[in-house]
Amino acid sequence: MTTLQTLLGIDLPIIQAPMAGVQGSQLTVAVCNAGGLGSLPCAMLTPDAMRKELFGIRAQTGKPYNVNFFCHVPPVPSDAREALWRNTLAPYYREFDIDPASIAAGPGRAPFTEETTAVLSEFKPPVVSFHFGLPSAALLDRVRGWGAKILSSATTVDEARWLEDHGVDAIIAQGLEAGGHRGIFLSDDLSTQLGTFALLPQIVRAVNVPVIAAGGIADAQGVAAALALGAAGVQVGTAYLLCPEASTSAVHRAALASDAARHTALTNLFTGRPARGIVNRVIRELGGINTAAPAFPLATSGIAPLRAKAEAQGSGDFSPLWSGQNASGCRAIPAAQLTRELAAGLQTLG
Amino acid sequence: MTTLQTLLGIDLPIIQAPMAGVQGSQLTVAVCNAGGLGSLPCAMLTPDAMRKELFGIRAQTGKPYNVNFFCHVPPVPSDAREALWRNTLAPYYREFDIDPASIAAGPGRAPFTEETTAVLSEFKPPVVSFHFGLPSAALLDRVRGWGAKILSSATTVDEARWLEDHGVDAIIAQGLEAGGHRGIFLSDDLSTQLGTFALLPQIVRAVNVPVIAAGGIADAQGVAAALALGAAGVQVGTAYLLCPEASTSAVHRAALASDAARHTALTNLFTGRPARGIVNRVIRELGGINTAAPAFPLATSGIAPLRAKAEAQGSGDFSPLWSGQNASGCRAIPAAQLTRELAAGLQTLG
Repeated sequence: MTTLQTLLGIDLPIIQAPMAGVQGSQLTVAVCNAGGLGSLPCAMLTPDAMRKELFGIRAQTGKPYNVNFFCHVPPVPSDAREALWRNTLAPYYREFDIDPASIAAGPGRAPFTEETTAVLSEFKPPVVSFHFGLPSAALLDRVRGWGAKILSSATTVDEARWLEDHGVDAIIAQGLEAGGHRGIFLSDDLSTQLGTFALLPQIVRAVNVPVIAAGGIADAQGVAAALALGAAGVQVGTAYLLCPEASTSAVHRAALASDAARHTALTNLFTGRPARGIVNRVIRELGGINTAAPAFPLATSGIAPLRAKAEAQGSGDFSPLWSGQNASGCRAIPAAQLTRELAAGLQTLG
Repeated sequence: MTTLQTLLGIDLPIIQAPMAGVQGSQLTVAVCNAGGLGSLPCAMLTPDAMRKELFGIRAQTGKPYNVNFFCHVPPVPSDAREALWRNTLAPYYREFDIDPASIAAGPGRAPFTEETTAVLSEFKPPVVSFHFGLPSAALLDRVRGWGAKILSSATTVDEARWLEDHGVDAIIAQGLEAGGHRGIFLSDDLSTQLGTFALLPQIVRAVNVPVIAAGGIADAQGVAAALALGAAGVQVGTAYLLCPEASTSAVHRAALASDAARHTALTNLFTGRPARGIVNRVIRELGGINTAAPAFPLATSGIAPLRAKAEAQGSGDFSPLWSGQNASGCRAIPAAQLTRELAAGLQTLG
């Protein structure tokens, strides 16, 4: 079988997980130049911002890089649901002296569209990864047209088989330990979600494409363990969050470096889809999964002003403090150094 | 550090997980004689039945073995809660023509008591493992008095530190993938539960006693991965369920061998405490975690007659089909062979 290194043109089968909102091209470039695959999360970028970041990557590295997109179908906004959500948040609006009428509704996360594809075609990124399944076959064909390799995340064996059937070049097995958004797309039943130790070997057995392990991998030992379970490579996110090249906020960095990071939960409060973050006040008070939250990504706008006000006071009470269940690898070290340290785990097995 | 082999007097650091209701001493003996540590689950045994099993073990092996207990504090039964539970189950009682008045209330699972300790002292089992924390210091001292090594399960870093502080000889890091009852005892918040990939290395770092990995380990590769993450040994349950030495029921065996085993959930329907089993009709219809279920172990008696009637018809719709998230290792092979195959993973790392 082709190695992940050959498939993606990289020296080290270590992918820096795309993390929308906490990193831009600086982290991408640092990992690429260290021999791994750096990723640029594009879900929160306008086309112009995306262009700027892509020019930045091309100016600073000649290595392959990955651009990542959410490929959800934007939901039809529901006035009733939005009202329920605003009502749920009303006590907080009062506490922070926010006029609910001043809050603009907005999507918060962009899907993968014609326009995105047009911007990307100017740059022809060598790797494109998707979350929540895949975009339409027509768009995917255009991405393949410039030779890009396609990755996507599977959270179940069924999703892995679906992705292979739809022609992905490699599959990211996203274990339940992983931080940020669950890639789940064939179901909305969270009981289907498996820990890395169970998910990874079952996906490896079920598909023929290379499988990339994600979720709970924080150091060289984690890399070695993933390889022992049959992974062709790893995707690591949380461990990169304290690197100086990440744009992780001060409250987020403080939480990751504290004992608070030992307790994460899946929550839909910040975007409408389940994502793993450190348990903070709003999760404790509203519950991780709250049925009042509008469909992804519409929950974002209602909570955004609370986050802004709280963060201005140095509080992460209303922030999405994305983190996986294993933040023990988080250190304020250069991303290149972290990448090399992770790579030490590649040598452990023969 | 002392190896687990030296600590427990075994050849292979492979513990067969105690699985109440699906195995007796036959499985214990088979694993012990293969060089691993066989376990006898005692939570559902009367003192006389326990004696019989212990005599059986002593007659068939000279190797060390493990006896396992739940050490919950029996709850005060609540008439209101029992009525709510019976009411929740009422449609099923009608469907199966069961007279609710005929259902005897009963505990279903025995705690670890003076009487248990007295029975054990006749046999002086070399290893005693506990679930849900530890029994009282006085009882624990008596167990230690005959030289037994003490094990218990931790599902969080805090629980691991607590167990070390209370003098256990080794800690079982029970990842969220594991089948059967969660060992959780310092909290009842299931969001604190970590996948093996995140839990194991963080516990290894937090304590000085040997750590045994449990949850999702189904084959030699899983054993190698656990060792890469710092485990001193492994505890494997699900993979033993199809062995001829297990007393796993026919409906349970059929479910484990089918695609149904790919979807498990945590459920309190069968005993009152969260445990992982294959999703079946009653879990689908009542939800995995249902607040009507009485406190552990009192939920057992209400659902027991439904299970009996359904199983008599060849259906596992109301059975606790315990399984971890990785049933891929389940095969109808002798337990000794499975133990040796798992042991192949011990050689992978230097």
